[in-house]
Amino acid sequence: MRHLTLALDIMGGDNGPHIILSAALKALNEFPQLNFIFCGDEGVITSWLKQHSSILSNRYSIVHCDQQVLMDDNPVTALRHKKDSSMACAIKHVKNGQADACVSAGNTGALLAIACSQLKTLSGVNRPALVSSLPTAKGQKAYLLDLGATVQSDAQTLLQNAVMGSVLAQEIGGIKRPKVAILNVGEEQIKGPASIKQAGRLLADSEHINYIGFVEGDDIFNDIADVIVTDGFSGNIALKSCEGLVKLLIEQIKRDARRNFLSKIMAKLAMPLLRRLYLRVNPDQYNGASLIGLRGIVVKSHGNASDEAFLYAIREAVQEASRQVPTKIKDKIENLLMERS
Amino acid sequence: MRHLTLALDIMGGDNGPHIILSAALKALNEFPQLNFIFCGDEGVITSWLKQHSSILSNRYSIVHCDQQVLMDDNPVTALRHKKDSSMACAIKHVKNGQADACVSAGNTGALLAIACSQLKTLSGVNRPALVSSLPTAKGQKAYLLDLGATVQSDAQTLLQNAVMGSVLAQEIGGIKRPKVAILNVGEEQIKGPASIKQAGRLLADSEHINYIGFVEGDDIFNDIADVIVTDGFSGNIALKSCEGLVKLLIEQIKRDARRNFLSKIMAKLAMPLLRRLYLRVNPDQYNGASLIGLRGIVVKSHGNASDEAFLYAIREAVQEASRQVPTKIKDKIENLLMERS
Repeated sequence: MRHLTLALDIMGGDNGPHIILSAALKALNEFPQLNFIFCGDEGVITSWLKQHSSILSNRYSIVHCDQQVLMDDNPVTALRHKKDSSMACAIKHVKNGQADACVSAGNTGALLAIACSQLKTLSGVNRPALVSSLPTAKGQKAYLLDLGATVQSDAQTLLQNAVMGSVLAQEIGGIKRPKVAILNVGEEQIKGPASIKQAGRLLADSEHINYIGFVEGDDIFNDIADVIVTDGFSGNIALKSCEGLVKLLIEQIKRDARRNFLSKIMAKLAMPLLRRLYLRVNPDQYNGASLIGLRGIVVKSHGNASDEAFLYAIREAVQEASRQVPTKIKDKIENLLMERS
Repeated sequence: MRHLTLALDIMGGDNGPHIILSAALKALNEFPQLNFIFCGDEGVITSWLKQHSSILSNRYSIVHCDQQVLMDDNPVTALRHKKDSSMACAIKHVKNGQADACVSAGNTGALLAIACSQLKTLSGVNRPALVSSLPTAKGQKAYLLDLGATVQSDAQTLLQNAVMGSVLAQEIGGIKRPKVAILNVGEEQIKGPASIKQAGRLLADSEHINYIGFVEGDDIFNDIADVIVTDGFSGNIALKSCEGLVKLLIEQIKRDARRNFLSKIMAKLAMPLLRRLYLRVNPDQYNGASLIGLRGIVVKSHGNASDEAFLYAIREAVQEASRQVPTKIKDKIENLLMERS
């Protein structure tokens, strides 16, 4: 691995800077070529680091920021009035080329707004997309995008999502020729809204995409496709509904457990599996969700991430940076544009 | 309960006429005032009934149909070329007033097409909606609509869905003043596509709806709202994604069970709960999905329904018929129109 520098938003997230710093120290041990720029309150960072590390101090720098984006800040407010926030600082370092990627567990809306405004989309990309991988029945993973960066997507945007998802599945997922599907309400070509049908034709016509057709919601998890393309509205609804269902299941098992001894044992046994699944359908908690289509790498970790979860997001950022995902996306989008011109 | 007549599509579904006839006989025992019109192959029906009943024979009639809508028939083909199908026959009896409701486990697309074409929408209703209730954490239920009857819905259609869902939650769910929410990608008023934001304003302005605002996908199951309104595309995606997730969970537990003895026991214990949940997030399998907004009652049971599941769908139809749901919807839509004129 070549030398990489990641900028971290130390103040983002619900659980405090120590979670993020703790994940960062673990990552420094894991990746010998990695360096960090810690963006946040210098006093807080220095005081924590003093107690926890010394030998690694040549592999990070601290950039003090006076402001912090709060979890309930309006994205527009964060963008306009918190220009000196730790989040904006981390993104700025990517923009200026001082960092290869940034990771934040902060307010998603604000992160989207600031990242889009600072980094801009790649040439040929209309809109950025939020993407993450979901577990499948055979233990593989499926990349679902968009998860909410762009609520309404026309056929061209869906086509671009297909390209971007393919690049990610190839470069990060290690899938040679990722199978790409469009999420729809039926598998037949006549099904769905006009934009979906048109996107189906565009994907079928492109040699750059291994398009397999429409899939339905229950196909997300069944290994039919490696990349599932949808607009940000439906993607977000699909993901959040699944998250809600797992929460419901955990609740039901807890309630059942109160009934009798057998249920209690069952609950004890089933709970770890359910919690694991909950983390996996709550992907930014599991391995971070990536904001792709921008001229830089931005990985979002869950607001409530543990240091282990934040470490996953760091690993994702390291992989995307070392595989130069934005460049690969740019190249593939250019090929697509040439094919269509 | 007053005397009620239901028309059943005996030939619909994957599991054969005996499932439906068996459910019908159970229903006759359960509801003394209920009568059936069995639409289907007379030979098949008579031969089954001969072996299974005699004393109830004055409470059903048989209408022979030469055709049958197959599960993979194109809806348009079914509508145009299978006018003598058991499905069309059952719906026609509702249209002619000879039946108070109909139930089918057949091809959903065909059922939608034939029901819409024959029964027409109620005055003031733009588009019909497919609705079902989902389980919630506190053991209540939430009515989610539209589940796929109308893929794209404008603000007016969402408003009408809110009214129709409220009527169902009130009349069937027994909820006095159902809390209505719109499914969106965030709770803030500025979130989501224009049609959703406009629908939010329309619902907030109406005295006929107890509107509580936007909810996200994970709120479907957490008792925040009694009625959750969405377009047919997102509703279908939400429901099917959840179905897929439960299937994944069942798969994972099965796979885990092969690992060691403890996992095997856990799988044995957890499976009934998961199967129950699977049935409930697969609501037409659980209690039927209702097609509402039409001038007649149409309940869809799952293609793969057992006789117990089909009996649920019959019960749903009985309830809707005895509470005269279409009339109640018509009245409430009229009130809404008056409020807005």
